[in-house]
Amino acid sequence: MLMQSSVLFSSKPAWVKAQYSTSPVDSNPMAATVPGPKWAQKTITLPPHRRGCHLVTSQILKEIRPDLSEFKCGLAHLFLQHTSASLTINENYDSDVRDDTETFLNKIVPEGRSAPWKHTLEGPDDMPAHIKSSMFGCALTVPITDGKLNMGTWQGIWLCEHRDAPTARKVVVTLNGI
Amino acid sequence: MLMQSSVLFSSKPAWVKAQYSTSPVDSNPMAATVPGPKWAQKTITLPPHRRGCHLVTSQILKEIRPDLSEFKCGLAHLFLQHTSASLTINENYDSDVRDDTETFLNKIVPEGRSAPWKHTLEGPDDMPAHIKSSMFGCALTVPITDGKLNMGTWQGIWLCEHRDAPTARKVVVTLNGI
Amino acid sequence: MLMQSSVLFSSKPAWVKAQYSTSPVDSNPMAATVPGPKWAQKTITLPPHRRGCHLVTSQILKEIRPDLSEFKCGLAHLFLQHTSASLTINENYDSDVRDDTETFLNKIVPEGRSAPWKHTLEGPDDMPAHIKSSMFGCALTVPITDGKLNMGTWQGIWLCEHRDAPTARKVVVTLNGI
Repeated sequence: MLMQSSVLFSSKPAWVKAQYSTSPVDSNPMAATVPGPKWAQKTITLPPHRRGCHLVTSQILKEIRPDLSEFKCGLAHLFLQHTSASLTINENYDSDVRDDTETFLNKIVPEGRSAPWKHTLEGPDDMPAHIKSSMFGCALTVPITDGKLNMGTWQGIWLCEHRDAPTARKVVVTLNGI
Repeated sequence: MLMQSSVLFSSKPAWVKAQYSTSPVDSNPMAATVPGPKWAQKTITLPPHRRGCHLVTSQILKEIRPDLSEFKCGLAHLFLQHTSASLTINENYDSDVRDDTETFLNKIVPEGRSAPWKHTLEGPDDMPAHIKSSMFGCALTVPITDGKLNMGTWQGIWLCEHRDAPTARKVVVTLNGI
Repeated sequence: MLMQSSVLFSSKPAWVKAQYSTSPVDSNPMAATVPGPKWAQKTITLPPHRRGCHLVTSQILKEIRPDLSEFKCGLAHLFLQHTSASLTINENYDSDVRDDTETFLNKIVPEGRSAPWKHTLEGPDDMPAHIKSSMFGCALTVPITDGKLNMGTWQGIWLCEHRDAPTARKVVVTLNGI
């Protein structure tokens, strides 16, 4: 039985709130069904992308939109199951921003003969890739509001591929909300 | 009906646990109402801050404390809807730490004529701001325990403003718990 | 009463879904009990580690495995209550990767007489430690699937200790799911 549920859009900032209670319920079989918290989880595969930063918002939404649309309020968690690529949120319009970010990453994480790395067995781009992965991180949590990812106007989801050889990348998506 | 709920403070580390079940319930109307999982979400606006790192814990708590206090156990998610500022958790006492962090960011992300950026239309501070945003990230998840953010003694929430022109910044706050 | 619950492993990628409803329930006391959303939270202490990056997956699992195993689908949140260490997810096999990452951090965050820091009262390693903490972050969220952390084959949880003096570090673990 839903004990309290108020969706307030009147004043800004207003809370959207819901509280569920498993208190004694009305035994009337005609009483309305009130949906409670939901969980949904699946693994999606992003196709190989060349080394660099890529806007993948639409690729991800294509996979999760129908389910996302069922959540009034919640959180979407994206988890990249790899250690040589990363997920980040950044500008969604000018591809120069993505190119410049790749330039930056290559500038501060040295690669090649002058680099001080011990871990070189998997190629000169591997150890730098691991470092870049921890710098940007492999996971994102984005608020869900009214069935959509509640990002800012200029925000998008980037997959940053740090290896030279393009590889398909798996992302575990977990949706939780009401 | 609550099937299992134990709050254990006896031994360290003890779990605080709660499990809800929508099993057949007692039809006795006098049975206690047991609150289930709750969600609360709102967008708050942080006023313009000058370029640099700023402690905003109290500004954020002022907006969310009454609602936060209703959660015994849960998670608070803060999501900055911008790509040229960031949120991070760091030292909450000495402002020199925040100044030194700004010094570091400016040191490793070059700005001005010597910088290699293609994206320059929005000013020399814009592309560095985007990079810094991905370095520190635009989102935080903090545990809620007994109605409070369960941060360490010396931890505070920082808003890092990476643009020269101070701008109001929106943060979507999502609270989830019991 | 469980209104909808389908665990689909047939096609890839398939959603694992569960939705709970507090609708009118069958009053038959023999009806099956259906567990709803669960929360579990506790603080664990990682013993002192020397400065550098350390694989702590097994140390953490040892503390949380029995409880983790009760979650079919959910999220595990790890929150380090400190500002001079960090948590990150990276390679779990070759210790050279961890050593090289420490080399990188020391390379880009200067320490000692040539460093520009104002905050020096707590030792030359303190201000660099704060910066490294914000670079890698103090929190992780990992998906839970079938009672386990759903990380990739090569992923592990690292504690990065940024101070010279090894210190025990507290991590608030919050599990949420079904």
